[in-house]
Amino acid sequence: MQHSADRRTEANLLAFERLTRSDPVLVDVRPAREFVPNFTPETILTSGPPLPWSDYTGGQRDAIIGGALFENLAKDRGEAIAKLDAGEIRVGSCHDFGCVGSLAGIYTASMPVFVVENRAFGNVAYCNIYEGSNPRRLNYGVYDEGVRDRLLLVQNDIVPVIAEALRQTAGIPLKPIIKRALGMGDELHSRNTAAALLFLRELVPNLLSLAASGSERVVRAVKAMTDDQYFFLRLSMAAGKATADAARGIEGSSMVTAMAFNCRGFALRVSGLGDTWFKGPHASVEAKLFEGHSEDEISWMGGESIIAETIGLGGFAQASAPALQNYQGGSYETMIARNKELYAITVGENPDYLIPALGFRGTPTGIDILKVVESKVLPVMDIGIAGRDGGQIGAGVVRPPLSCFEAAADAYRQRYGC
Amino acid sequence: MQHSADRRTEANLLAFERLTRSDPVLVDVRPAREFVPNFTPETILTSGPPLPWSDYTGGQRDAIIGGALFENLAKDRGEAIAKLDAGEIRVGSCHDFGCVGSLAGIYTASMPVFVVENRAFGNVAYCNIYEGSNPRRLNYGVYDEGVRDRLLLVQNDIVPVIAEALRQTAGIPLKPIIKRALGMGDELHSRNTAAALLFLRELVPNLLSLAASGSERVVRAVKAMTDDQYFFLRLSMAAGKATADAARGIEGSSMVTAMAFNCRGFALRVSGLGDTWFKGPHASVEAKLFEGHSEDEISWMGGESIIAETIGLGGFAQASAPALQNYQGGSYETMIARNKELYAITVGENPDYLIPALGFRGTPTGIDILKVVESKVLPVMDIGIAGRDGGQIGAGVVRPPLSCFEAAADAYRQRYGC
Repeated sequence: MQHSADRRTEANLLAFERLTRSDPVLVDVRPAREFVPNFTPETILTSGPPLPWSDYTGGQRDAIIGGALFENLAKDRGEAIAKLDAGEIRVGSCHDFGCVGSLAGIYTASMPVFVVENRAFGNVAYCNIYEGSNPRRLNYGVYDEGVRDRLLLVQNDIVPVIAEALRQTAGIPLKPIIKRALGMGDELHSRNTAAALLFLRELVPNLLSLAASGSERVVRAVKAMTDDQYFFLRLSMAAGKATADAARGIEGSSMVTAMAFNCRGFALRVSGLGDTWFKGPHASVEAKLFEGHSEDEISWMGGESIIAETIGLGGFAQASAPALQNYQGGSYETMIARNKELYAITVGENPDYLIPALGFRGTPTGIDILKVVESKVLPVMDIGIAGRDGGQIGAGVVRPPLSCFEAAADAYRQRYGC
Repeated sequence: MQHSADRRTEANLLAFERLTRSDPVLVDVRPAREFVPNFTPETILTSGPPLPWSDYTGGQRDAIIGGALFENLAKDRGEAIAKLDAGEIRVGSCHDFGCVGSLAGIYTASMPVFVVENRAFGNVAYCNIYEGSNPRRLNYGVYDEGVRDRLLLVQNDIVPVIAEALRQTAGIPLKPIIKRALGMGDELHSRNTAAALLFLRELVPNLLSLAASGSERVVRAVKAMTDDQYFFLRLSMAAGKATADAARGIEGSSMVTAMAFNCRGFALRVSGLGDTWFKGPHASVEAKLFEGHSEDEISWMGGESIIAETIGLGGFAQASAPALQNYQGGSYETMIARNKELYAITVGENPDYLIPALGFRGTPTGIDILKVVESKVLPVMDIGIAGRDGGQIGAGVVRPPLSCFEAAADAYRQRYGC
């Protein structure tokens, strides 16, 4: 027993060190098919543990169909469904491709992805680009002409400018931006306002040199980068994936390395328990909905942006983002209390991601499934809320089901005998 | 008695409304001599109530002499002193020229100033430009070749770019930037990090169009604008002056419209008490000093950046800036407690400048001298600290002497009979 507890502590410290020593650097932005391994033209990725195509329901199913149409893999909805049924269009899980999905998390072959290299450990992660602030978005289960136009705007107008500017740099380290943004009111999941401006600052010299050949398109890219709090989320997510992946597969570690939703429920993976997803029902949610929406509309259609919480950001850094009250509800006192409580279930305090409002204490980092089961304190996650008819209808704080952690803890005890 | 109290309440509400309805807009940046009324080539402005030249001592005296040398009004220190003694070089008070001085607050004729128009009430205020992050600066009582080079860099290289970009706009409203920055960790006096980035964002489209003719100089200007937390302070100060001036001269009002230091002490002005400065000794200070400096070096050489506190920012918005602990010392708990205490001495809560960490409560705004005297709660001001040998040696929190408020309260009672 004592021996195993020591071993677990040691393994978790190693996993924690991998998380905290990670050095995510944005190195490129390119179409998924060019860069993401095994991404065929007929591949569509979506959030959460793999499901048979027929098990996808609601907005997540609609989002997959929308992805097929956007990618011109079918001429209409009927043909898309037929091809999905026949396996001619292949549905994959984001995490299996080094990607992380925002909400429904649809990736198609032509969509550009941020390429983030973990310079400390050599692994690479990807995240696609924010569609813009219209609540009707493909990753919220909506596909129509407006969604299509915005997706095309992103890939044809916004991304090329960022790509060109980026290629003049030696890569943009994301950790310093995240560190600084935590002192500027962001928690890097549901609020990324300062991070976007700090990212802009890094890119400005290169954007200026591009402007010689006409500033209009550069202005449009800058607007896309800074007009909404979610642009940088995709960089925070890619950084999160590059960071969390470095902590995978450590024998004996009970630390969570991924959490994800699909339309069927919540799931998590543990460093010392291989690639198994421990699945459970949906999370409980405290939401603040946009005007004109009600609780009964709340709908689950996937989500992997909770990679932020996996590495000690988002809900684990809420005390850094008092202004988030306005967006997702709850008082700042509650946010601080919730944030502090999470130290009970984490392996350590982040040496880089510090919370000024907690006297520069490091964020609680590295969720230990056994500590969750023992304390019954559940992780806190800051997410956008999707509606029954698609589109974003609000934002809120969710807690995963305890049963996932219990199932993972059982498997851990079975494997490691403690 | 009752009648007078009502009259005071009414006058203060009017003064408060002037503060809070003010709409400061940056409209230009030009040399002081071109724009500031009555600014002759031989004028040098400095912080605080007017003093005879012979009364200026220490770093403030050195800064005035440095200003004369920078402006080439004398070939050396001896000649500068002789001309100042003879009145050939004229020393003026910033506030008398619509300006506000950062620390020693030296303005000379060739120095560029931000021109801020209060679009709600038509008045205009000015503030000159931050010299850069080197602790040895003219406004900290130092003048040498390095200081001169940096001042010239600002006026010859940095400002022309900003001016050119600015003239393509219809003016940049500063209130929306300040509002937003309060949710991003700034209090707009000793911390302006987010505000600088938000200001950059406003200017980027115009900077990009300038870059067609060579991006290097634009890059340098962007760097100057965003590398340090003090660039935006000068805009915050000009906005503060434009705002506070709109509330001057309201019969019956006991609200403070200006606070200032010179080398001799602290002083304040009151809306209903004309142009009189109520003077007192120096403020008390809780400082955090840069490595290698000690308390006995702390030196007073003027300062009017406390216009920020006059309009409900800076020390009156400390709860917005938890990261400021690192820079000026003190815990966040203390900052919150101090911030809350100030509601006891202010006329109202700012309808625009909101503090997310206090549940979006408006900052305590409009200092009422009678409330200060009654409660003995003194204003809190976030300032940079100058050293005996010149230069910035730290930052801290200061409280003005109660005696100034008592003197002003006596004058108020004498004039208004209550």
